[in-house]
Amino acid sequence: MVDDAARNLRRERRRRRTGEAGSETSRRPDYRSLKNPFLPQPIFSADQVAAIHDTALRVLEQLGAKVLLPEARAILARAGALVDKDSQMVRIGRDIVSAALASAPKSIRVHAGDRARDLTLELGSMAFLAGSGAPNVTDLEHGRRPGTLAAFEDLIRLVQHFDVLHMLGPCIEPQDVDNRFRHYAVNRAQLTLSDKLPFVFARGTPQVEDGFEMLRLARGLSEVEFRSGAHCYTVINTNSPRQLDVPMAQGIIDFARAGQVLIITPFCLAGAMAPITVAGALTLQHAEALAGLTLAQIVRPGAPVVYGSFSSNVDMKSGAPAFGTPEHVKATLGAGQLARFTGLPWRSGGGSAANISDAQAAHETQFALWGSVLAGATVCIHAAGWLEGGLSVSFEKLITDIEALQTIAELCVATPGDEAAIGFEAIAEVQPGGHFFSAGHTMARYRTAFYEPLVADWSNFGNWTQAGSRTATERATGIWKRLLADFRPPACAAATSGVLDEFIARRTEEGGAAPVS
Amino acid sequence: MVDDAARNLRRERRRRRTGEAGSETSRRPDYRSLKNPFLPQPIFSADQVAAIHDTALRVLEQLGAKVLLPEARAILARAGALVDKDSQMVRIGRDIVSAALASAPKSIRVHAGDRARDLTLELGSMAFLAGSGAPNVTDLEHGRRPGTLAAFEDLIRLVQHFDVLHMLGPCIEPQDVDNRFRHYAVNRAQLTLSDKLPFVFARGTPQVEDGFEMLRLARGLSEVEFRSGAHCYTVINTNSPRQLDVPMAQGIIDFARAGQVLIITPFCLAGAMAPITVAGALTLQHAEALAGLTLAQIVRPGAPVVYGSFSSNVDMKSGAPAFGTPEHVKATLGAGQLARFTGLPWRSGGGSAANISDAQAAHETQFALWGSVLAGATVCIHAAGWLEGGLSVSFEKLITDIEALQTIAELCVATPGDEAAIGFEAIAEVQPGGHFFSAGHTMARYRTAFYEPLVADWSNFGNWTQAGSRTATERATGIWKRLLADFRPPACAAATSGVLDEFIARRTEEGGAAPVS
Repeated sequence: MVDDAARNLRRERRRRRTGEAGSETSRRPDYRSLKNPFLPQPIFSADQVAAIHDTALRVLEQLGAKVLLPEARAILARAGALVDKDSQMVRIGRDIVSAALASAPKSIRVHAGDRARDLTLELGSMAFLAGSGAPNVTDLEHGRRPGTLAAFEDLIRLVQHFDVLHMLGPCIEPQDVDNRFRHYAVNRAQLTLSDKLPFVFARGTPQVEDGFEMLRLARGLSEVEFRSGAHCYTVINTNSPRQLDVPMAQGIIDFARAGQVLIITPFCLAGAMAPITVAGALTLQHAEALAGLTLAQIVRPGAPVVYGSFSSNVDMKSGAPAFGTPEHVKATLGAGQLARFTGLPWRSGGGSAANISDAQAAHETQFALWGSVLAGATVCIHAAGWLEGGLSVSFEKLITDIEALQTIAELCVATPGDEAAIGFEAIAEVQPGGHFFSAGHTMARYRTAFYEPLVADWSNFGNWTQAGSRTATERATGIWKRLLADFRPPACAAATSGVLDEFIARRTEEGGAAPVS
Repeated sequence: MVDDAARNLRRERRRRRTGEAGSETSRRPDYRSLKNPFLPQPIFSADQVAAIHDTALRVLEQLGAKVLLPEARAILARAGALVDKDSQMVRIGRDIVSAALASAPKSIRVHAGDRARDLTLELGSMAFLAGSGAPNVTDLEHGRRPGTLAAFEDLIRLVQHFDVLHMLGPCIEPQDVDNRFRHYAVNRAQLTLSDKLPFVFARGTPQVEDGFEMLRLARGLSEVEFRSGAHCYTVINTNSPRQLDVPMAQGIIDFARAGQVLIITPFCLAGAMAPITVAGALTLQHAEALAGLTLAQIVRPGAPVVYGSFSSNVDMKSGAPAFGTPEHVKATLGAGQLARFTGLPWRSGGGSAANISDAQAAHETQFALWGSVLAGATVCIHAAGWLEGGLSVSFEKLITDIEALQTIAELCVATPGDEAAIGFEAIAEVQPGGHFFSAGHTMARYRTAFYEPLVADWSNFGNWTQAGSRTATERATGIWKRLLADFRPPACAAATSGVLDEFIARRTEEGGAAPVS
């Protein structure tokens, strides 16, 4: 019956197209700026949230954190923190933290290469990023292998293509480039292939300064213009429990001074590097995030900082990290409560511990995703393509996960509920036994009514079998290959290659910049 | 570092086990009675919900529905509905519908074969069912094939095993049994292999009466005892748009008279058998559900009825039904608002249009699942194993989907947020550079802290590769085979086979009962 009706529909469409030439419009959804439509879901009472916050302050005040960078200890000491030189432990009073929370901006406007790609990071807005930081890359054509620059560039191309991925990220580590020059290649790829907000690694001041300079060259910004707005971001990971290492502390100082975005993320795996309870892991996470953002605010009050959360659990039998688990979802929901307590924009983490793009990978990734959405995360990192708990990024999983992100983006669009949408006349028009395929109400809307899938195949079993019985993951290979074949970088981005290459040639001649550890 | 820590943990555990013999306890989560912890998510304003309800009443009052069963038309006419004999159209006034909504129970206690399996169906409670009604069955060992009784029995065994599946369902159609005797085999399997609430098909009074009699025999209930409580359920599908066929109308009458549960579900595919808008599809769905439950309430005021929703969309290019789409999620969220408007327990539908248990299938199923959870559905049918939009049930997908349902069930459990959970002392105990694996806080909780996965494999890529590089779907085969090999039916269920077989032998000799169409 549905098949008959579909034939009617096609006939009807052909008829109308002929009659109304030029009236055909296609669906062009706008995923560039998402507002989260879901009510945040709490797991703790307001009192419990206050108690976690208070305990985190007590952790910083009474126990302190180990800060490995002398300059960072000196900055904290000048603000009144108590430093023990021998142990490198810094105890930060709650008044210092409170002052930092008061000066941190609640809304951060970030500038991309194209004004239409600018974002506002604040509670209520929602941005997605592909999986980041993986040493390996995998796809069905070439298998799993150490990350290469070519694969990194292809991933940037794919991220650029999909509007639902809002910022760039260091998807994989291009291990085929010497680490004194790797940051040039990574920054060049981001700036010449994409007009989205780039990521700059915090691997020591020399690399950071190189990154800032490339950004100024690519965007045509003076030093003053650059520092007066946020043009890039970095992720700062604390070494849980309670330790801030040298490059991370330096990154906080360098990015805060330059007014660039710091996402300060403790990576608290409950039962391993954090207490086994969700509340305990979040208490440690909160303390470490507050320590990092306090350092940033002391360096430059008003420095753009994003509260970071990435707490999940480990398998207590093997110690293996797990993602998309009930505990991961709960930790994310609780982190959302803590972030709202501070009022700051915040990031969550998606992901999966699966080794291949299969049903486990999809389920885990989607649970992590819903955790982020229902927790009201501003930025969800690792939302697409992340496998093995971050040890690889998959080209195919990137595509199948983007379908999930686009579905969430569609849910951000308001659902018409007015008289025309309710459609009494349409219901009256179609008699029992009839169908709505050619109703006027349908014909006026069919071109744009429904989400059009990226990789989902809704054909029946017979047609699907005839087409090769391919899984979504197998179909995804064809999709990313086609997108790469058709890819054209934004003109404004491509135009920056000359000035960047000149800079890179000079810096390469000078010996580049080794990462600081 | 995590690996070292894991070794420490294992050593510590062995040490403690030796010291405290008998203190080892394992995790025994209780998934039998779930309360939905999530705030319902609206897509319409309160005014829009009222307008949809009002328009649905207008549809029934002014346009009416075609009711093919003369007895049903007569019952509705006696209650004041206007019947046109030639067209079989019945127009039902809003006063009649309002009276039905007033008499329908807001909470339904259903009795299974074991008191511990009884359920309360009401707003706020949450029950999951496996995929139902599929003509075909599929698994990796035998491939896709028409449903058989042996496969049906195996699916009942698997459903019985998992507490997170709360009711039985007609997962697949056992096409190898003649349809005059099929209902005996289906009912026998449910009653002898499981102590969960059984399903009885509404395929005409003779089959329904056979089903009720088998239930009375199995449960040892008198006719009066049977009718005074709800011991089984059926699903009534309207023929959208606006038609109620003979067996479905008869089912409403028979189940209402017997006081057994009616789940009245229009299957409204937006753009095909319902208006193309979510609001329009829900208006039609609401009108049809109200028509069905009104008939039930006229037959027996207080008859247990569950408001049914299963609205999704079709692909407007091919007419193919789609599930787990943004429109499906939105329709479910809107249906939840309409159900809460009526105050009745209600059902939603999960599912996927994928042809195989892959990433598409997992993503679609989980989107549909989250739609149900966030809409506050009392009963979510097709929540596990459903493929091809209901044309097949997969043994492997049943397993991988149950992992998702168990994850949701874990999210129903409150997260401790008290001082002990926050664990300041645990944080104080572990120094920077240390780990929590052997902290007292961890040791006191590690046995029961985290969900233990059913099919997810969190081992690293090397170990996973060495173990055969199997996908979750491939691993699921081993799981269902092991569960079937180990299956023992509940003693109370197995004990009913004698009396049931006697009944079946007699009725078979009498020629059985053909389905009514």
